[in-house]
Amino acid sequence: MTMAAPPPVAVIMGSQSDWATMRHAAETLDALGIAYDARIVSAHRTPDRLVAFAKGAKAAGFRVVIAGAGGAAHLPGMAAAMTPLPVFGVPVESKALSGQDSLLSIVQMPAGIPVGTLAIGRAGAVNAALLAAAVLALADDGLAARLEAWRTRQSEAVAERPDPGAP
Amino acid sequence: MTMAAPPPVAVIMGSQSDWATMRHAAETLDALGIAYDARIVSAHRTPDRLVAFAKGAKAAGFRVVIAGAGGAAHLPGMAAAMTPLPVFGVPVESKALSGQDSLLSIVQMPAGIPVGTLAIGRAGAVNAALLAAAVLALADDGLAARLEAWRTRQSEAVAERPDPGAP
Amino acid sequence: MTMAAPPPVAVIMGSQSDWATMRHAAETLDALGIAYDARIVSAHRTPDRLVAFAKGAKAAGFRVVIAGAGGAAHLPGMAAAMTPLPVFGVPVESKALSGQDSLLSIVQMPAGIPVGTLAIGRAGAVNAALLAAAVLALADDGLAARLEAWRTRQSEAVAERPDPGAP
Amino acid sequence: MTMAAPPPVAVIMGSQSDWATMRHAAETLDALGIAYDARIVSAHRTPDRLVAFAKGAKAAGFRVVIAGAGGAAHLPGMAAAMTPLPVFGVPVESKALSGQDSLLSIVQMPAGIPVGTLAIGRAGAVNAALLAAAVLALADDGLAARLEAWRTRQSEAVAERPDPGAP
Amino acid sequence: MTMAAPPPVAVIMGSQSDWATMRHAAETLDALGIAYDARIVSAHRTPDRLVAFAKGAKAAGFRVVIAGAGGAAHLPGMAAAMTPLPVFGVPVESKALSGQDSLLSIVQMPAGIPVGTLAIGRAGAVNAALLAAAVLALADDGLAARLEAWRTRQSEAVAERPDPGAP
Amino acid sequence: MTMAAPPPVAVIMGSQSDWATMRHAAETLDALGIAYDARIVSAHRTPDRLVAFAKGAKAAGFRVVIAGAGGAAHLPGMAAAMTPLPVFGVPVESKALSGQDSLLSIVQMPAGIPVGTLAIGRAGAVNAALLAAAVLALADDGLAARLEAWRTRQSEAVAERPDPGAP
Amino acid sequence: MTMAAPPPVAVIMGSQSDWATMRHAAETLDALGIAYDARIVSAHRTPDRLVAFAKGAKAAGFRVVIAGAGGAAHLPGMAAAMTPLPVFGVPVESKALSGQDSLLSIVQMPAGIPVGTLAIGRAGAVNAALLAAAVLALADDGLAARLEAWRTRQSEAVAERPDPGAP
Amino acid sequence: MTMAAPPPVAVIMGSQSDWATMRHAAETLDALGIAYDARIVSAHRTPDRLVAFAKGAKAAGFRVVIAGAGGAAHLPGMAAAMTPLPVFGVPVESKALSGQDSLLSIVQMPAGIPVGTLAIGRAGAVNAALLAAAVLALADDGLAARLEAWRTRQSEAVAERPDPGAP
Repeated sequence: MTMAAPPPVAVIMGSQSDWATMRHAAETLDALGIAYDARIVSAHRTPDRLVAFAKGAKAAGFRVVIAGAGGAAHLPGMAAAMTPLPVFGVPVESKALSGQDSLLSIVQMPAGIPVGTLAIGRAGAVNAALLAAAVLALADDGLAARLEAWRTRQSEAVAERPDPGAP
Repeated sequence: MTMAAPPPVAVIMGSQSDWATMRHAAETLDALGIAYDARIVSAHRTPDRLVAFAKGAKAAGFRVVIAGAGGAAHLPGMAAAMTPLPVFGVPVESKALSGQDSLLSIVQMPAGIPVGTLAIGRAGAVNAALLAAAVLALADDGLAARLEAWRTRQSEAVAERPDPGAP
Repeated sequence: MTMAAPPPVAVIMGSQSDWATMRHAAETLDALGIAYDARIVSAHRTPDRLVAFAKGAKAAGFRVVIAGAGGAAHLPGMAAAMTPLPVFGVPVESKALSGQDSLLSIVQMPAGIPVGTLAIGRAGAVNAALLAAAVLALADDGLAARLEAWRTRQSEAVAERPDPGAP
Repeated sequence: MTMAAPPPVAVIMGSQSDWATMRHAAETLDALGIAYDARIVSAHRTPDRLVAFAKGAKAAGFRVVIAGAGGAAHLPGMAAAMTPLPVFGVPVESKALSGQDSLLSIVQMPAGIPVGTLAIGRAGAVNAALLAAAVLALADDGLAARLEAWRTRQSEAVAERPDPGAP
Repeated sequence: MTMAAPPPVAVIMGSQSDWATMRHAAETLDALGIAYDARIVSAHRTPDRLVAFAKGAKAAGFRVVIAGAGGAAHLPGMAAAMTPLPVFGVPVESKALSGQDSLLSIVQMPAGIPVGTLAIGRAGAVNAALLAAAVLALADDGLAARLEAWRTRQSEAVAERPDPGAP
Repeated sequence: MTMAAPPPVAVIMGSQSDWATMRHAAETLDALGIAYDARIVSAHRTPDRLVAFAKGAKAAGFRVVIAGAGGAAHLPGMAAAMTPLPVFGVPVESKALSGQDSLLSIVQMPAGIPVGTLAIGRAGAVNAALLAAAVLALADDGLAARLEAWRTRQSEAVAERPDPGAP
Repeated sequence: MTMAAPPPVAVIMGSQSDWATMRHAAETLDALGIAYDARIVSAHRTPDRLVAFAKGAKAAGFRVVIAGAGGAAHLPGMAAAMTPLPVFGVPVESKALSGQDSLLSIVQMPAGIPVGTLAIGRAGAVNAALLAAAVLALADDGLAARLEAWRTRQSEAVAERPDPGAP
Repeated sequence: MTMAAPPPVAVIMGSQSDWATMRHAAETLDALGIAYDARIVSAHRTPDRLVAFAKGAKAAGFRVVIAGAGGAAHLPGMAAAMTPLPVFGVPVESKALSGQDSLLSIVQMPAGIPVGTLAIGRAGAVNAALLAAAVLALADDGLAARLEAWRTRQSEAVAERPDPGAP
């Protein structure tokens, strides 16, 4: 799942079930030619793994952390508490509350420990990857060009008029 | 603030400002003659302290943990992830969202790591103490009697009729 | 459905339809070797049964009450009003409001009568059982060991990496 | 506070602090010449009083019950569970959640036990009295006339144009 | 659909699609032997019909009005503005907001014009009928007995224990 | 309060207390040189006045109706049901729910009867006037020029940099 | 999709997927004989197209703009910022939050730039067309007659009684 | 307000009133020795300024954009639509809805255009600055050291125990 060593982006998530959302981050990173390492790190069920990951993330060569979780979603904020790297959080859509709990648990961090939070669900996962790309592109002209091209293609793909026959 | 060593209850909170809420837990424990240790443990600003506290809580002799926090309130759930002791969470009222974020961040824990959550604010702090008392009273007949007396006094204190002149 | 007499845990619920949620509490208690008694007690349709159950729960030998209900969910709080035992509440997911009504009806108890509230739905039911286990384990080393083992197995079951092929 | 015996309306509330809201029900009943009995009945702190009141309400001669409560407001629904009389519920504005918890705890009753719920706060208290009046007026032509006159005066009191100088 | 003339209950609703909810009110009235008249009265699409119905409801012999509507649900409140009869409102579950808009539009009436509001959806429709029955039973001993029997059967129908095999 | 006869805009509101919000609509219309007639029309307390106003609004020469109301805010929608004129609704901020009830009661109109809804409170009142101006300007070049000038002044009034000393 | 040149109404939407909602606006305009131009204009993916459209809308002969978007729905407000024409916004139902985000993003515009907002989803799209018709009818007697006829047909289509056999 | 040219961070906000929130971003940048340029850019009242700023931001030498806005907060998302730089959004607390509208308007961006969103209000403003610092520190060892020191001081400033006498 990674393209090069050490990959600049860590994509972590609280459980296997979050992959259905977070794979959209992975696919977007793939599309932009950005290597990443995808891991399951449960803040609640594997707190030791969380501590080890977060404290070692910078030394391991990561530059950006993308963290997805749902419900009482503590993973992004706790990772941010233990790494100086920028952390971007993706609220995974929860069953009963549709991700409203995930969103508030991630975005409402107290002053001192930031998590840059994206939208609930798939859009947020895609955008976490794009935001990571924007950060990495500050020091990588090749990536900056690829990101610009991606954005241009996205703009050009918007049809002028709705297709009444489309599903 | 403690009556005996080792105290059975730990009252932890994310910041000094949470004390305005959590002191109601402390006062209720005092009223019931239950010793406790009150500490500031910030999940985000002092994650090492959190890990040390939670992993050592049982060995330190605590039997119940009361944890209060506001906003993206990760303290109760992260403590619960690292101790087998029962953890009761108090959502502190936050400024913008009135504790709705605190409540959801604490109560919506995933299957596997429970936090028994009380009401937002002062009522929740009082009740966390009462719930801790109910747990400790299972093995302490003296406390059971004190708790029963407390509840009886509470019932008897309810006037039969509203006082139109009361504020 | 019970393993021994008298069982330490009562699992009560407002209606047959709540069983789809509350059976997850029962199964978790089974997995931990904790006996329980599961009953339907409707606060609204069988208030006499509620009074009889709650007032007699301690004398009947119960040590913890788990109560699940949905909508205007009064069962956990009313049980807590009439027993000194610790009561843990499970908000059952309601149809129109997805359990937001259940959650607020259970968690927002006034100072004086606590209900330790878990998450909406299945996760809350599992966690109510785990919280009951944590309470009972304070006086039962065998159970404490089983709970610790359960938690360890849970941690070990978390894969290192997401399985892209999983559903 | 009552005008005649036995008064047709019982105004119950969960605590002294609810009187600030519920006195608007009392004042409206006074204005319509309807006798009532105002009592504090806490579902949580005085469950025995609740059972005694609700089971005896009809025999005591009450014809309508107005019940006000805040937070996890169980009083109206539990009263309705134990009396065949019509019960009207007033959600008292709560501190953190502004009465949203009170409203959902009262209105979202399951099929089988109705509570006719009014607006949060003062308007709801006034309207509970008016609704009780409408019910009693079905069998009391004098009251029907007084209610009609009250409504007419209310309509006539609406100015044609806003007063720019009014506060 | 009516059992006798003039029927004491009017069941009005905003559109044909509300019948899926409101038929539960009708069926409950049928079960209690209460005659009713079910009509579609759209506050927005047939305002003249609304005015004619509401202004004439008392003279037509109705004693209670049950009104169901969804979304910006103005029917119950506008009917209440034009009749002195007690009006009970049923918030029909709306598509996008699950009846939260319906509930607030019905329950948050200003002081002066009450609507006794029931739960969102089917439960609210059943309960509107039961509340109408409770009102009518104040002056109808036969109905009082039927209602009491209905409630007793309801209580007796609650099983003691959950049926693990039930769906 | 009007500048000419017949004024093209009717500004109606549910009560005197709404004037504190709706006067911002009036002042904005004044600033744009648009005549208006401000009236109190309570959907609930003066339904006859509502019917008379709405049915006669077009014949009276009004071209746009601005309606402000709070809580279960039925005025805008009911006016729209009885006039073919464009109706713009202003949700007045309510006490307990901060205008969330007002907003949903106004905006969630069913298909068939539209209300163009503005923001809660003062901003909504100002904008209702501006939207009315935009509509009237379609057939009034002088007003179009005044509106354009107003918008230009508004843009020019935005400072380039924040003033740290401003309150 | 247009009936005449230049059409008076522009129907813009943020993406092809919004057409499932916005086609109801188009169909309603068709039914009223109002020409329109339907375009995809993404505020986020095609900001240049947005600027070009909005700044040129009046000169292009449009008289009313209908704009639909979902989630962080910026299209209606940004269009309104760059055209003096009346803009009516349709909140498209979003996946996780059911259009609550769309609604607030559109309706809560600051004082100075109005968007007349309709209901979430299909009803809002239909009503945006009807509101546009009401505006255009102010200067088009033929359209006024067609709109009046449409409203009359709508009223007449409301059955007197619910059809129990209807789906 | 800037320390050097060209400053790496742009702090933009929708109005002067947002400065009360956004100055906390400015002060935090000051504390970390990061130069910035603070500007008022209203998406709605100065759309041309927004376009000019966003399209020119990268060429002007900015590396990160911090954007604060309230209500229907379009500034962060629209800026992100027109610059490849990372954009961090701060939801300013709004009057009626306490920033819930601001939060959803900023965070719920569609796939393709990311805004890393921080908490509502002051905490969000502080954290936007810290997140910008984390991004810039990836290529600036001096800043990385200052940020690390800032975080260490923050951790050390957390007292061990609550001060009962503190306000």
